[in-house]
Amino acid sequence: MRAVVYHGAREVSVEEVPDARIERPTDVLVKVTSTCICGSDLHMYEGRTSAEAGKVLGHESVGEVVEIGPAVDRIKVGDRVCVPFNIACGFCRNCERGETAYCLTTNPGQAGAAYGYAGMGPYRGGQAELLRVPYGDVNCLRLPPDAADRENDYAMLADVFPTGYHATELAGVQPGDSVAVFGAGPVGLMAAYSAMLRGASMVLVVDHQSDRLRLAEKIGAIAVDDRQGDPVDQILDHTRGMGTDKGCECVGWQAHDSEGHEHPASTMNNVVRSVRAAGAIGAVGVFVLSDPRSPDTLMRKGEVAFDMGMFFQKGLRIGAGQTSVKAYNRRLRDLIAAGRAQPSFLVSHNLGLDEAPDAYLHFDERADGWTKVVLHP
Amino acid sequence: MRAVVYHGAREVSVEEVPDARIERPTDVLVKVTSTCICGSDLHMYEGRTSAEAGKVLGHESVGEVVEIGPAVDRIKVGDRVCVPFNIACGFCRNCERGETAYCLTTNPGQAGAAYGYAGMGPYRGGQAELLRVPYGDVNCLRLPPDAADRENDYAMLADVFPTGYHATELAGVQPGDSVAVFGAGPVGLMAAYSAMLRGASMVLVVDHQSDRLRLAEKIGAIAVDDRQGDPVDQILDHTRGMGTDKGCECVGWQAHDSEGHEHPASTMNNVVRSVRAAGAIGAVGVFVLSDPRSPDTLMRKGEVAFDMGMFFQKGLRIGAGQTSVKAYNRRLRDLIAAGRAQPSFLVSHNLGLDEAPDAYLHFDERADGWTKVVLHP
Amino acid sequence: MRAVVYHGAREVSVEEVPDARIERPTDVLVKVTSTCICGSDLHMYEGRTSAEAGKVLGHESVGEVVEIGPAVDRIKVGDRVCVPFNIACGFCRNCERGETAYCLTTNPGQAGAAYGYAGMGPYRGGQAELLRVPYGDVNCLRLPPDAADRENDYAMLADVFPTGYHATELAGVQPGDSVAVFGAGPVGLMAAYSAMLRGASMVLVVDHQSDRLRLAEKIGAIAVDDRQGDPVDQILDHTRGMGTDKGCECVGWQAHDSEGHEHPASTMNNVVRSVRAAGAIGAVGVFVLSDPRSPDTLMRKGEVAFDMGMFFQKGLRIGAGQTSVKAYNRRLRDLIAAGRAQPSFLVSHNLGLDEAPDAYLHFDERADGWTKVVLHP
Amino acid sequence: MRAVVYHGAREVSVEEVPDARIERPTDVLVKVTSTCICGSDLHMYEGRTSAEAGKVLGHESVGEVVEIGPAVDRIKVGDRVCVPFNIACGFCRNCERGETAYCLTTNPGQAGAAYGYAGMGPYRGGQAELLRVPYGDVNCLRLPPDAADRENDYAMLADVFPTGYHATELAGVQPGDSVAVFGAGPVGLMAAYSAMLRGASMVLVVDHQSDRLRLAEKIGAIAVDDRQGDPVDQILDHTRGMGTDKGCECVGWQAHDSEGHEHPASTMNNVVRSVRAAGAIGAVGVFVLSDPRSPDTLMRKGEVAFDMGMFFQKGLRIGAGQTSVKAYNRRLRDLIAAGRAQPSFLVSHNLGLDEAPDAYLHFDERADGWTKVVLHP
Repeated sequence: MRAVVYHGAREVSVEEVPDARIERPTDVLVKVTSTCICGSDLHMYEGRTSAEAGKVLGHESVGEVVEIGPAVDRIKVGDRVCVPFNIACGFCRNCERGETAYCLTTNPGQAGAAYGYAGMGPYRGGQAELLRVPYGDVNCLRLPPDAADRENDYAMLADVFPTGYHATELAGVQPGDSVAVFGAGPVGLMAAYSAMLRGASMVLVVDHQSDRLRLAEKIGAIAVDDRQGDPVDQILDHTRGMGTDKGCECVGWQAHDSEGHEHPASTMNNVVRSVRAAGAIGAVGVFVLSDPRSPDTLMRKGEVAFDMGMFFQKGLRIGAGQTSVKAYNRRLRDLIAAGRAQPSFLVSHNLGLDEAPDAYLHFDERADGWTKVVLHP
Repeated sequence: MRAVVYHGAREVSVEEVPDARIERPTDVLVKVTSTCICGSDLHMYEGRTSAEAGKVLGHESVGEVVEIGPAVDRIKVGDRVCVPFNIACGFCRNCERGETAYCLTTNPGQAGAAYGYAGMGPYRGGQAELLRVPYGDVNCLRLPPDAADRENDYAMLADVFPTGYHATELAGVQPGDSVAVFGAGPVGLMAAYSAMLRGASMVLVVDHQSDRLRLAEKIGAIAVDDRQGDPVDQILDHTRGMGTDKGCECVGWQAHDSEGHEHPASTMNNVVRSVRAAGAIGAVGVFVLSDPRSPDTLMRKGEVAFDMGMFFQKGLRIGAGQTSVKAYNRRLRDLIAAGRAQPSFLVSHNLGLDEAPDAYLHFDERADGWTKVVLHP
Repeated sequence: MRAVVYHGAREVSVEEVPDARIERPTDVLVKVTSTCICGSDLHMYEGRTSAEAGKVLGHESVGEVVEIGPAVDRIKVGDRVCVPFNIACGFCRNCERGETAYCLTTNPGQAGAAYGYAGMGPYRGGQAELLRVPYGDVNCLRLPPDAADRENDYAMLADVFPTGYHATELAGVQPGDSVAVFGAGPVGLMAAYSAMLRGASMVLVVDHQSDRLRLAEKIGAIAVDDRQGDPVDQILDHTRGMGTDKGCECVGWQAHDSEGHEHPASTMNNVVRSVRAAGAIGAVGVFVLSDPRSPDTLMRKGEVAFDMGMFFQKGLRIGAGQTSVKAYNRRLRDLIAAGRAQPSFLVSHNLGLDEAPDAYLHFDERADGWTKVVLHP
Repeated sequence: MRAVVYHGAREVSVEEVPDARIERPTDVLVKVTSTCICGSDLHMYEGRTSAEAGKVLGHESVGEVVEIGPAVDRIKVGDRVCVPFNIACGFCRNCERGETAYCLTTNPGQAGAAYGYAGMGPYRGGQAELLRVPYGDVNCLRLPPDAADRENDYAMLADVFPTGYHATELAGVQPGDSVAVFGAGPVGLMAAYSAMLRGASMVLVVDHQSDRLRLAEKIGAIAVDDRQGDPVDQILDHTRGMGTDKGCECVGWQAHDSEGHEHPASTMNNVVRSVRAAGAIGAVGVFVLSDPRSPDTLMRKGEVAFDMGMFFQKGLRIGAGQTSVKAYNRRLRDLIAAGRAQPSFLVSHNLGLDEAPDAYLHFDERADGWTKVVLHP
């Protein structure tokens, strides 16, 4: 089968690799029809992770089931499915509480596995023609009959839509809340979109890329352009000086200013400054255990200069981490199926698998208009 | 009336000041019978806050109502009451959600007021013969008829018992959980005690003072002496390498090692290292907006080198801040009244008001056996 | 002042009564500009309650503050306010937990007080030129500067919008849920509207009045006309035989079929039949402690033939009762102010106070098109 | 293998049946070492259910794993395990939310399966030498090395301890709460015990059997003997007329008075009368969809004369149904392992499998001292 293979910093190619196949009785084999490039793939692409050469990339996949193992009971050949980025067993202590992002079975010694990702286990990714899905009954989300017509909407269910939603869940966004979202990349936009779906009264989205801020406005949010002044001041102006009820950090450790200089603590501390007393924060932008190449000395060992004084004085709460996709993907699928959500507004490019190297290059450059790429093998 | 007055770093005296009195129709006047010295009073005592000379100290008070304003409906003269350390209006946006620690009315421009505390409004403290309680119907907790017999138990309801409980609430401690508590001062011991009351299966308490660790063991917790090796390693040993389900930070920014050197991030990061993936943390040890006298350069502006990488990778949640005492004091009172809780195990010294200067000195030295002082004016 | 006065079954008149005035230092006096007739007023109107002759009716009021008592700190003369139907002290055990509908202070011997309502205390109602608001700082919701332009929207905040929202809160409606709402009166429509605001994927509204079902469709719900077959069957058809995730009972004990015969248990049991296993129900339609005039013998002593077998087998949850308006009115106000909610779509008639008797008559007849009446004194 | 087989009302025998064996790749085979008779088995024993002759009974089993299917990854031969009474797939919509009592896979057309129980699927029970456990990785709870020493404690984890705990969870019992428990059978005693573990300040247990009331007192609860007057009056006396914060219904549809007459609604309505306004109720006593043999005409079709008027006026919440054992069994196991819980205080009789017919007889008679029987095959 053909697949997108990582070879080193800024080097990916599309090449022939051995076919994915059923290896365990609980496996499901999926013929991939749509698979996205994720912002988190760029951390690997830029050589900022421990990804090894030869890895097949991709963790956002939709397709058709072509084979099932003998212990698979729920999923049938021919089902159209969306595959969450996390690989979960369904029965460990964390999975049974719905914390499938922290599965204790699928990546021994760690908590949590994923397809085609550095440090997340030996699994090959979905930017390929075929994908082996372990514990297929647990990990496949069945799609409705009209799946093919809205495949780009359903493709968002593998990662970015649940991840954006997770930010709002960690922050406890409720109807009527005002919400500040830092970062208008795909995850930030999905957080803003989720906040709107949950009935927020005002959603403020901070970024410095005009194309992304325009998308934020398109979904009913207020764009806050941080090239035009301190975003926290702008947020305070929009909220009579009180700050927002809730905040979402959707940038992570490679946060940088509009000149491109990295400041790992900057967006996180800005969220703390933006949220009102007794508020709450969801943080889904990635922070890593160490980054030897970071320009910031604390960040090299995974630390940031966090504004704990203000965090404590305001009595805030924060939840962080990867999303347990299964916690949300059914309900978000139902919203898509009912026509109440169309997350594919994000998608800027539909390309063939062979165009992946070029797509990585442009997406990594945050080239104007490259918000989200879907590859169709 | 006589009262404990702050004059500057390590200078307090007991002196005559004008009587507290009814000033507003919603006020209640309490004759104080028990009033404690709090660990947070020591931040002022050591000159590490903005406290002004002349301030009457004390925010943990129990006593008898001697006068009420004309708009007071619930509280009657003669009632025995415990007064929460936070002063709340009961009707602002935060109070109406139970977040009385972040009252928007009683300390204009800030969120939250307290008696006799730096930065918490102009209110005089309770280490005095009389205490004016604003919004008395909101702020007085009525005690049962046997209050005098168990006054030291009920005195713990003004701050330390609810504050320790708050740590366990922020951490979401549930029956069967294992819990790591950093700090065996009064608040840490109350957090451990609260975790036991909530049905924790194992509570590990970290400190380096033998007298406090002994108290931890007395209430059924496991003492972890950090003089005997990395406390995180010891906690991992107790939990088959998994870490605890929940963690409580009960030390704050003046965290120091057993030689007395301050490391503001140390206990917080140790909690992050001690808690298992998908766990949660309550942080009630105080962090301030700035501390110009801190030996740590980040802490001077309120920041700490927080291990955000591990926090994110583990998918943790943390809540911080002062306790809204009213959220818990009724239920904790009911536990005392039913004989199911005796938080006064903490109290090491019952003294007269005039002995306050001496008590401050010894308590500040963490002199052996000085865990909690109650003054009886 | 002029006011709507109850005299007996189907007898109300508009007449001169003594002016409302400040009686306690915590009172606020409001000049009423909008005041609605509520479906629950009809229970009194029809003589099905213990309401005494001479009672001034009305518990849904918006107006301008014209005088405040000396202990009022937050509310100022000139403020535009909406007054929740429940009268709360703000400091009792129930109020401090946000359960203001069950205030233990304002209606001694009962839990909960209201304006102008049978069994809810001695308070005069708001269908009048002036309204005395006890504990004004607690009970007045301040409205934004544009309040006059959207007064009908804000008038819905006194009762029906929070009450409909409460049904969805008790049922735990989450994004993506399917929801069955029984009853398309004002409260049912507000429940459906709230479910949509909370991100439901499908809302099914059951009734047998065409005008009301049309309003349900207007807000994006699916109308289920129970004249056209068993509504439960229709709901199962819409949900592939599974039933909805959540259900709302918005009818109450005077539930009747399309021929007008009362069956007190019918809608409640239909909700139980409509909701899927492990689902949840919010019940805000009123049930009374006894109704000597009920055609149903059980209901005469407040009982209904509840389908406990199915309730248990499905593992359902239900919450019932009056709404603590203050739990929701700020967030719903913010949605109106932001233009994200326009609950006034309900309002069918804007009338003068003197037209009240006529309005009661037509509203009680459920005359076609009479969904909600706002009186403007 | 030998097993307890149901033949009809009050007819069970121990006989040879075909060995249980691995049938599906995800199965686990357990050699049963302890297996209890449950109060719910008595509903079948008395002929009040649809149980068919030939059914092997028993759904509370502990034992040793003797064989595993080829798709079992977590459970190993030799593991000591406790098997929850519900049989769950782990991957359906309900299981993935932790609602394993309402599994949609294991009992097609219903929600929820169990071993050896009427209407809960074709599974043979555990009152036998061997038990086939479907989806073994999902359904087996591993026990610690000391399991054999405390086997009676761990045997309580299969049903009664989690079921009693579930009542307190549905009721939302929190530290400091007062709790009324109706029924001092095994489940009621476990509810009372769970309430104590969760930090209740006062637990009142209602029954009319002296031996059971004595056990309630032994665990720190207050016994309320309903032979000595209306139990609701007694509860009100204990709570200054206010009622308890929370209530648990642990009797079910065969509720009867001390003379043995059945009144299906009586305990449920007594709970409603006993709980204070804005309180909550957990109902784990079984109610069935129909009972043609019931003396109560409503109950024949699954209905009870529920006091909806008081339920609504008090603004109560109630949750009902079977327990999803997996939601609690890990945490309760950890409490047993830590020595913080000893639920085996319940067990009155340890018998051999062959003594089952006699044990059924006495347990069904509620013979004095027969609180809980454990069979050791």
